[in-house]
Amino acid sequence: MNKADLIFAAGENSADILYASGFQAPDPFIYFSCLQEHAVIVSALEQDRAERECKTNITIFGRNEFSKDDKASDLDVICSLAQSREISEFRVPHDFPLGLADDLRKRGLAVRAEKGVFYPERQYKSEGEISLIEAAQRVAETGMRRGIGIIREASVNNDRILEWNGNILSSEILQAEINIAMLRLGGFADATIAACGGQAAEPHNTGSGPVYAGKPLIMDIFPRMKKSGYWGDITRTIVKGGAPEIVRKAYEAVFEAREYAKTLIRPGAVPAEIHQAAKELMERHGFRTGRQDGRNFGFFHGLGHSVGLAIHEKPPLCPVNSEPLRGGEVVTVEPGLYYPEWGGVRLEDIVVVTPDGCRCLTAMENILEIE
Amino acid sequence: MNKADLIFAAGENSADILYASGFQAPDPFIYFSCLQEHAVIVSALEQDRAERECKTNITIFGRNEFSKDDKASDLDVICSLAQSREISEFRVPHDFPLGLADDLRKRGLAVRAEKGVFYPERQYKSEGEISLIEAAQRVAETGMRRGIGIIREASVNNDRILEWNGNILSSEILQAEINIAMLRLGGFADATIAACGGQAAEPHNTGSGPVYAGKPLIMDIFPRMKKSGYWGDITRTIVKGGAPEIVRKAYEAVFEAREYAKTLIRPGAVPAEIHQAAKELMERHGFRTGRQDGRNFGFFHGLGHSVGLAIHEKPPLCPVNSEPLRGGEVVTVEPGLYYPEWGGVRLEDIVVVTPDGCRCLTAMENILEIE
Repeated sequence: MNKADLIFAAGENSADILYASGFQAPDPFIYFSCLQEHAVIVSALEQDRAERECKTNITIFGRNEFSKDDKASDLDVICSLAQSREISEFRVPHDFPLGLADDLRKRGLAVRAEKGVFYPERQYKSEGEISLIEAAQRVAETGMRRGIGIIREASVNNDRILEWNGNILSSEILQAEINIAMLRLGGFADATIAACGGQAAEPHNTGSGPVYAGKPLIMDIFPRMKKSGYWGDITRTIVKGGAPEIVRKAYEAVFEAREYAKTLIRPGAVPAEIHQAAKELMERHGFRTGRQDGRNFGFFHGLGHSVGLAIHEKPPLCPVNSEPLRGGEVVTVEPGLYYPEWGGVRLEDIVVVTPDGCRCLTAMENILEIE
Repeated sequence: MNKADLIFAAGENSADILYASGFQAPDPFIYFSCLQEHAVIVSALEQDRAERECKTNITIFGRNEFSKDDKASDLDVICSLAQSREISEFRVPHDFPLGLADDLRKRGLAVRAEKGVFYPERQYKSEGEISLIEAAQRVAETGMRRGIGIIREASVNNDRILEWNGNILSSEILQAEINIAMLRLGGFADATIAACGGQAAEPHNTGSGPVYAGKPLIMDIFPRMKKSGYWGDITRTIVKGGAPEIVRKAYEAVFEAREYAKTLIRPGAVPAEIHQAAKELMERHGFRTGRQDGRNFGFFHGLGHSVGLAIHEKPPLCPVNSEPLRGGEVVTVEPGLYYPEWGGVRLEDIVVVTPDGCRCLTAMENILEIE
């Protein structure tokens, strides 16, 4: 009896099945790998598209090759696959659907969820993958330039609110214009952050309502390229019409922390220590981290995450990751400082870990103040 | 000991957790319901957003209320929840992550995957939900008008290829312009279909390359409203510069099939029978369904699917669904005909099942030929 890898997911939702097959189908399909065979099983509707998109080492089967019945369930198809390949045990990703796993077990098949990363090699990018991430990053930068360009074009009214194109400039308009600029290049983003003032003090607040002069505006832009499936990610913070002293100081601390962290990134370096070093540098600038009245302040998220076929991949650059870097990881470096009183500052580049350090994949300047 | 419902998913990926909580967080969070308590457990980073977005009957907990340890795993938090509420068994959705379920079982908790729909009531839309779907549908129609407007503006060159704005008009440009028109209204679409000629013969081909005169162009547009989470869905088929006779006939058959199917939709009607009636009507027009040289031709997908917080919901209007409609379902009605020799035609409206029939939620004309 044989063991096999099994994934059941939509290519658009599962980086693992996309990594293994290259196929971006919107509906869930079956991928398996057994001995020397790597294959997908798709519906008749998807067979032509699978032929075009799948990696060259992948065999493409229609469901009817495993079940004569057009109405066969996924369970039936997988059981028939197991029988034909003499498979007794499937290794599946941690997020494999429980209902399907339980049904397979009832049919006498062992199903073992992988505890950790399903494809550890997915953490270490090939040259081809790095090029695709760089292409996505160029698109993210185009979005950022559009956002900054609008802030530059905007005027400031008597209430210190920005106006653009004859209207109050809102976070929503900024997000839409940024997303549109990227859409024209094949990049899709649906959670672009453009958060100003107090909203910028919450790292996950995407921002809404008017954009103000004199307050920090965080723009965090992460498009997914429709064709390749790879992501880009960039964050800049700007202030229209003169930044308060505290924002200028925070910006300096965050910028220095990011640049210093980059000098520490190399094979053998420990992510938790890099995170800690960035945090301590910002503390030396006078920016403490803590919690008051049920709200966090200071630097209270991880320094970075890996980027590839998912926007948040392993390994992270975070306080609990003590696994040394190996080389080939593509990680964001994005320190930030957040205080309810004045808002927040975050600056994010992405780098690839090289044999002797890291190479920055972001090619965009950092400017705080815009007239 | 108590039983509880448990969902662990991102609000943007799981219609169930969005339906239960109203919370659209991009990262997975915990929802549970036990006795009279309905609650979410979120990270400190998400607590403010959860307070703003969650439904009024939902209690919001930070993870630290279930575990003092900042680094507590999801498993730890759920076990601590089970202990505090004396829960011995969780009912979870079919697609609950296997790895987490197995870990919970090892800790002595029963985890039972729901076989069918997790919230059967999600199939029957409230007045409020119908309004949100109609709003999404207005956005989908705006996208369609933009697409048709571009075809109208386009000229036909000597190779019978469309030109627009001084360039060859491609499926990709059409898709981008349609998506942009919807983005400005808060609607996100990333799989818009604009498939012409032979590509239109594959219902799942999104289309690429030049758009031709004299060949059918299928545009299938399904945006998700960022704010509400509800979807719209519309399909039209048009031909620039005169349609071949076969396409005109197919269009007539598809249009009649759609309109006839609508007259059959009412509480008590059986989806499989409605599908069959539409298929037979098109057969009477001379359009057979079958398979040749490994390819399907004719009408080989389901007549429709339900739409709500997911684009493909239950119940479907398909040949294997013999469960009578009850009223309150919002379903697409989208017959299509596909032949490799000349392409395809599909026309899609959405309707809500009312006490005495159905009401069409699509407010857009049907035109085949555009000069």
